[in-house]
Amino acid sequence: MESINDNNNITEVIIENESNADQLASNNVEASASKVHHRRTSSLQLRKNKVDHDSTPISVIYKPEAETIEVSNIADGSTAIDSTDVPPVSDLNLLLAATYVEDARDGRHSDFKVSERHLKLYHMYQSKWGQIVLYCILFLHLSLALFEKPAVHGLSLKYWITITMEIGIMFFYLFRLIHISVFTPLTRFWSDTKNILIIVFVGLTFLDMVIYIGLVETGHYGIRWSRVLRPLFVVNFPEMRQIRRSFRNLRRTLPDVVNVLFLFFFSLAIFALMAFKLFGDRGLKWVNGRPYFQTYWDSIFDLYVLVTTANNPDIMMPAFDDSIAYVIFFVAFLIICYFIFMNIILAVIYNNYRKHLKNEVKKTVYSKRQQLSKAFEILAVNLGGQRIITRSRFVQFMRFLDSQKNPALINVFWIVLDTDGSHSLEKWEFLKLADLLNVEVSEVVDRRTFIGHYFPSVYYSRPSKFLCRVVRHKLFRVFFDILTLINAVVIGIATPYSTWDDSAEWFFLSFFMMEILLKLYVMGVRRYFKHMWNVFDIVVIGSAFVLGIVEAIIETERKSRLSLDVLLVLRVLRLVKIIGNVSRFKVIVHTISKIVPSLLTYGGVIMVFYYMFAMVGMESFQGLVKFTGYDIDGGSDLFCSNKKLEDSDFWNEHYCNNNFNDVIHAFIVLFELTVVNQWQVIAYGYAAVTNPWARLYFLFFHLICVIIVLNIFTAFVLEVFILEYSASCQGNLESQMEKKIQEMGLSLRRKSQKAATVSEEDLVVSDSDSFDSEDEREGPFNEGESTVDGRITPGASSFYTGYKDISSETDVRFHISKRLKNVEVLLQKMFEKELDVDDLGPHISTLDQDLQDDEYVANQDQSLWGM
Amino acid sequence: MESINDNNNITEVIIENESNADQLASNNVEASASKVHHRRTSSLQLRKNKVDHDSTPISVIYKPEAETIEVSNIADGSTAIDSTDVPPVSDLNLLLAATYVEDARDGRHSDFKVSERHLKLYHMYQSKWGQIVLYCILFLHLSLALFEKPAVHGLSLKYWITITMEIGIMFFYLFRLIHISVFTPLTRFWSDTKNILIIVFVGLTFLDMVIYIGLVETGHYGIRWSRVLRPLFVVNFPEMRQIRRSFRNLRRTLPDVVNVLFLFFFSLAIFALMAFKLFGDRGLKWVNGRPYFQTYWDSIFDLYVLVTTANNPDIMMPAFDDSIAYVIFFVAFLIICYFIFMNIILAVIYNNYRKHLKNEVKKTVYSKRQQLSKAFEILAVNLGGQRIITRSRFVQFMRFLDSQKNPALINVFWIVLDTDGSHSLEKWEFLKLADLLNVEVSEVVDRRTFIGHYFPSVYYSRPSKFLCRVVRHKLFRVFFDILTLINAVVIGIATPYSTWDDSAEWFFLSFFMMEILLKLYVMGVRRYFKHMWNVFDIVVIGSAFVLGIVEAIIETERKSRLSLDVLLVLRVLRLVKIIGNVSRFKVIVHTISKIVPSLLTYGGVIMVFYYMFAMVGMESFQGLVKFTGYDIDGGSDLFCSNKKLEDSDFWNEHYCNNNFNDVIHAFIVLFELTVVNQWQVIAYGYAAVTNPWARLYFLFFHLICVIIVLNIFTAFVLEVFILEYSASCQGNLESQMEKKIQEMGLSLRRKSQKAATVSEEDLVVSDSDSFDSEDEREGPFNEGESTVDGRITPGASSFYTGYKDISSETDVRFHISKRLKNVEVLLQKMFEKELDVDDLGPHISTLDQDLQDDEYVANQDQSLWGM
Repeated sequence: MESINDNNNITEVIIENESNADQLASNNVEASASKVHHRRTSSLQLRKNKVDHDSTPISVIYKPEAETIEVSNIADGSTAIDSTDVPPVSDLNLLLAATYVEDARDGRHSDFKVSERHLKLYHMYQSKWGQIVLYCILFLHLSLALFEKPAVHGLSLKYWITITMEIGIMFFYLFRLIHISVFTPLTRFWSDTKNILIIVFVGLTFLDMVIYIGLVETGHYGIRWSRVLRPLFVVNFPEMRQIRRSFRNLRRTLPDVVNVLFLFFFSLAIFALMAFKLFGDRGLKWVNGRPYFQTYWDSIFDLYVLVTTANNPDIMMPAFDDSIAYVIFFVAFLIICYFIFMNIILAVIYNNYRKHLKNEVKKTVYSKRQQLSKAFEILAVNLGGQRIITRSRFVQFMRFLDSQKNPALINVFWIVLDTDGSHSLEKWEFLKLADLLNVEVSEVVDRRTFIGHYFPSVYYSRPSKFLCRVVRHKLFRVFFDILTLINAVVIGIATPYSTWDDSAEWFFLSFFMMEILLKLYVMGVRRYFKHMWNVFDIVVIGSAFVLGIVEAIIETERKSRLSLDVLLVLRVLRLVKIIGNVSRFKVIVHTISKIVPSLLTYGGVIMVFYYMFAMVGMESFQGLVKFTGYDIDGGSDLFCSNKKLEDSDFWNEHYCNNNFNDVIHAFIVLFELTVVNQWQVIAYGYAAVTNPWARLYFLFFHLICVIIVLNIFTAFVLEVFILEYSASCQGNLESQMEKKIQEMGLSLRRKSQKAATVSEEDLVVSDSDSFDSEDEREGPFNEGESTVDGRITPGASSFYTGYKDISSETDVRFHISKRLKNVEVLLQKMFEKELDVDDLGPHISTLDQDLQDDEYVANQDQSLWGM
Repeated sequence: MESINDNNNITEVIIENESNADQLASNNVEASASKVHHRRTSSLQLRKNKVDHDSTPISVIYKPEAETIEVSNIADGSTAIDSTDVPPVSDLNLLLAATYVEDARDGRHSDFKVSERHLKLYHMYQSKWGQIVLYCILFLHLSLALFEKPAVHGLSLKYWITITMEIGIMFFYLFRLIHISVFTPLTRFWSDTKNILIIVFVGLTFLDMVIYIGLVETGHYGIRWSRVLRPLFVVNFPEMRQIRRSFRNLRRTLPDVVNVLFLFFFSLAIFALMAFKLFGDRGLKWVNGRPYFQTYWDSIFDLYVLVTTANNPDIMMPAFDDSIAYVIFFVAFLIICYFIFMNIILAVIYNNYRKHLKNEVKKTVYSKRQQLSKAFEILAVNLGGQRIITRSRFVQFMRFLDSQKNPALINVFWIVLDTDGSHSLEKWEFLKLADLLNVEVSEVVDRRTFIGHYFPSVYYSRPSKFLCRVVRHKLFRVFFDILTLINAVVIGIATPYSTWDDSAEWFFLSFFMMEILLKLYVMGVRRYFKHMWNVFDIVVIGSAFVLGIVEAIIETERKSRLSLDVLLVLRVLRLVKIIGNVSRFKVIVHTISKIVPSLLTYGGVIMVFYYMFAMVGMESFQGLVKFTGYDIDGGSDLFCSNKKLEDSDFWNEHYCNNNFNDVIHAFIVLFELTVVNQWQVIAYGYAAVTNPWARLYFLFFHLICVIIVLNIFTAFVLEVFILEYSASCQGNLESQMEKKIQEMGLSLRRKSQKAATVSEEDLVVSDSDSFDSEDEREGPFNEGESTVDGRITPGASSFYTGYKDISSETDVRFHISKRLKNVEVLLQKMFEKELDVDDLGPHISTLDQDLQDDEYVANQDQSLWGM
């Protein structure tokens, strides 16, 4: 008999004799299925007063007969272990262990002095609110560019306002840094490049401010050059681990790419020399009248542009018109420098990226394991000649880690971790804890809908149940899919002059609103919002509805253009929902949705480069090109207000809006440059208004952002996609967890199937039934579940694992969410296969010398670990 | 004592007691190195009267003492095996086995009836000349497009001439097919889709001819639509294995890509609907005045063009000028449809490509092994309860396979194959033969230079030797590299009006000619041409020299433009040689040079599509657009001679030369479309002169050639590149072979090192010495060798493996060429690791049902195999 008193008295779990049959079950499904007839005793007492205030404590008694095969030594052994007087862990040690485990879970390095005060400071630093404030400050710092000269139209602020704000931000950074320096060992703090860099950047920023104020106040023109450093603050805060890692990957991939780039530029130089000599003196002209390969540097630039394909047939046409034989030159050039070199560069990047990624992931895994191993040493006791963690300590620890955690879930954790069924955790078992904590398990306590809960007589009446069945039917979905398509056609054929347009829209809108309401009624609010597509649906339809009503109320004659546009976009977006309903798209959508969060990291990397280039571009090109429209008779300025652009492509192609006059315009231009096409027109435009070397700015941008970063992005997509596709047997821990949850009858899906065979009129049945159909309906994110479920035939399900099915005793159900799983987890899993189960790895600092924040193990005081 | 009498009496090898020490040596270098002191007896007699007519037969006696460990049972056993009266194999069986082995080596399927007549027919069919004629005919068939209407200017032929030629070609195809049908089992012949397809295509071609002649003779307009089928003839001839395989890969990759493409087009359709409704009614215009998103289909096409980035900022600018908020639409579109979808498509293609490639390669390996196993069954005898091939039979077989093969090389083959040192080949050992035959071993018999051979007194005189040393010195190379760079600078700064230009060119040219002559003198002609860079050098410099002299003789006042251009290109190309001398480029150049041959296959695939699209394009668009120049006052036609192009971008950007008026122009246009940029201008141009649906032609071309084929090409480059980079321990057989050759002292490099320690004045020394330096000098293709060589320290080399060093007895040296190794071999090696050593695989037809030419095993008469 084991009794755990929870600190905050929310739940009490009493489990008598847990039995090791779960171990058996997981190993041999057939065997255990035949043993279900054995009578078992076991008691589990659950008091859940957090959500259901009126629910009475549930007490279950299981009495499993001892299995002759295995239980002989272990079943008693477990009682023996738990009954010995193992002292509870002290609060400080719990805190220390919890810190290690949390850091392992979140992939942080535990970098603190081991004392209560420092631990508390560390926790304060890592606290959610501290993080949020930091992110806000970082965001504010970056957005200062909106208000500084050249400011976005209407947002301009006096320079002393922005500088004052920036000074405040700088002090926040310093404060944050001082905070770090307090809880980190000093040698570690000063050997960390990140901290040094932040101090240097702060210093430079102050220096820049002083110079700027001095210049401006004495009437000179000042440049805020330290703005280029701003994104580097973002990168160097320890919280930006992912972005920093991408940068590290990028930096390591570079040296290998440089060789290829050298060879590429050498070839380019040779071809340019050839073109320059072949075509330079022929008196040929580009279509816009520019001389053709007139100088060597022009030749190099134009051929580089050709490699980006941006001036593809144009560069060839003058020579082609002269003689067809010259085409050979361009074809040879494109085949060598574009088709072969660009692919080779991608291959080199992909190859190196993979190599370094593997190394990075390995390092993370090792670091995680070392932290967990420290936590283990703190929690473990010496029993029977080996260090183990007892059940009581584990539960104590888990409750310390998260006091809100459901005891049943802790139980599941224990069962999953204790793979050898020894009723105690050995070190190698404990090492899985961090991954387990990363499995997103959502707890569904009250599974009835609001209406079903408070007005059961209404919800469970005959017509209501008929309605539920209709809504859950496949044809219901098909009907609305077809309606959406019809709606799309209507949108397509409607003209702004048609009068039936508005009423048709209201017709469709009311239908879709009805769909939402029906589903809300049937599924209940909480469950409805669990599905991404439903959220999407309600946002799109709901806001269209609200906007439509607002429109109808405020002005009847002339609707505002903006809301009309938004309404239209919302209407068309309804079509997107169909994707979720077409099964052939599901796998791809599934994969893409998994990739997206990781792609955001690369978005961050790109943003860093964008910001830096935008700052340089704004200082260099601001105000040189202005957009005033192209209606010359209507008073617009000619040539983008710059006489030097007369007859240039830039003016002819109406690119005046591609300017660097504020940070938003600069970002748009940089985005256009990233998409590459016509970048030479922009480059030549700015070269015309400044000097020809301005083209170098654009060339470097292309080299860095397109050739390097975008190729790394491609490499990343390739790697992740292949991983996702090949990881069919993925999620070892997840599937284990799922199985255990199912075995205990605490799975949503499992429950429904079993219940369905018992009684159709049961309250729970209709409820879980809706889940069932809902899961199939909103399928794309739930594929993992169906496979797990598929293994249990409906008939046998009531027998199989029935011995510890506690589903009827508690309303708590767990649901393993598989949506948007972090690619990180997948990557780690991939490389973990190559490691031994309890391999803690070499000293991490030897894995990679330049990553100084890995050296924490060396300088860590280890005296506290030994209990 | 074993004596093999060669059929054509060129060489006689007598080897007495081969001893199994080579096996030991390969397994345990240290151990065998210490055993070298044992006296050994063995005799090898080599008579080589093919090259050195005056050389006397060399007779060597080795007397190895019996090794107590292993030789006890094997050394005698080997004599026992060879001394038993194993009858020589009959000529027919030899021919059969040789056919199997040759087919395995070349990757063909042995698809013939097993009888002497059919075998001979098969050999006739596979003969080199038959192949060459076939390739010529195929080439001729494809080039008919040059002469047919619309013919290339000046090459036009009357239609009955080309039709007559095509009829001849058809009959050749039929003849070839009949030839196949004779030696192939009939059921196999008719179940092979390739043969059926060729018959169908021939029939269609005849039908087309009849219709065409009928139409033309009655004064109607005829279309030779069967021309589209021509490249399919190429694909369907059994000889085009590689191209067909690429097509198969492409076809298998498609179904998986189709899903993503569907999703992509669905997203495109949604965005197009949005754009159409958002911008269609605003009265916006493109820069060229075309209405902006006026119809839904235009919207789809324009957004598709945006995905190819070809109209990148242009499509955005009108909306951007209207309101900056619209930029969000385009940014969202580009991120989703361009950055994400295009990368996903690449990932899907890469993933599937890899999967199918692996399958293909596995099939090839199995097929090879099955053929070799048949050959083994023919050649093997039952001895000691197992089937083995005796040494005498092996030598008989190898001499039958290639009567020119050097007996010493056959010896090397035997040693390499007989890995377990049992002095007989078991089946699993024999299975490596095909790979071994694919190792390109060049035999270097006379290693002295021409001058060194005939005028030794001159070549080996003191000044000459000093010269040799100078030429081999590193500074010699550096000097000429610098000279090349100076030459490049001179070319760069020279103007057509400068007078010193010509004399400077002659100055450089004479220097470079001198370099070539010096190297030729020092290295000798044969060795000089062994290196790619030397060949390149002599072509570039030599032809510049010849052209320069011709120019100087023929006309002094006005040089022809063509020869001037060629001369210039040749001059600039000299720079390329520097790449070969910069060590950091070597690895990349090495890799690229290995990839190139395989890329040609994809060149073939692209050509098939080009040809088909070119035929369709020519029939659709010929004569609609004409180039007459843009000098309107000088009598050029306006708007490319087509009024409909007035004010179009096509005319404004001077694209008149991008027409389909003959096959060469069509190919150039298609190449431009492959590079993608501005393809929409061409598409809109042809849409203007025909009808808007003409854009579909260009859209399909982009979809097939760029999105599918080019991505597969990228996938291929990625795969091959990673393979090349990761294959550091590659070439198992090659390195084995290299080792054996070195052990026998028959390696060029090995020899040099040993000899260098003996005497410096030796004839052979100076010779091999030059090789040594030469190998280092022309390094990029010889990297593999140096690693092998590195393992043997110069001091120990004379001891190690000295027991069977026969280097001093024969002038024959072998050199394993590593340049331009087939990627195929690499791929096979990669996947062979996953297979068991003697796994013959399943019945190949089960591996892939639609590849019918793999079913040969089933219908093969197996009665002949058992001896």
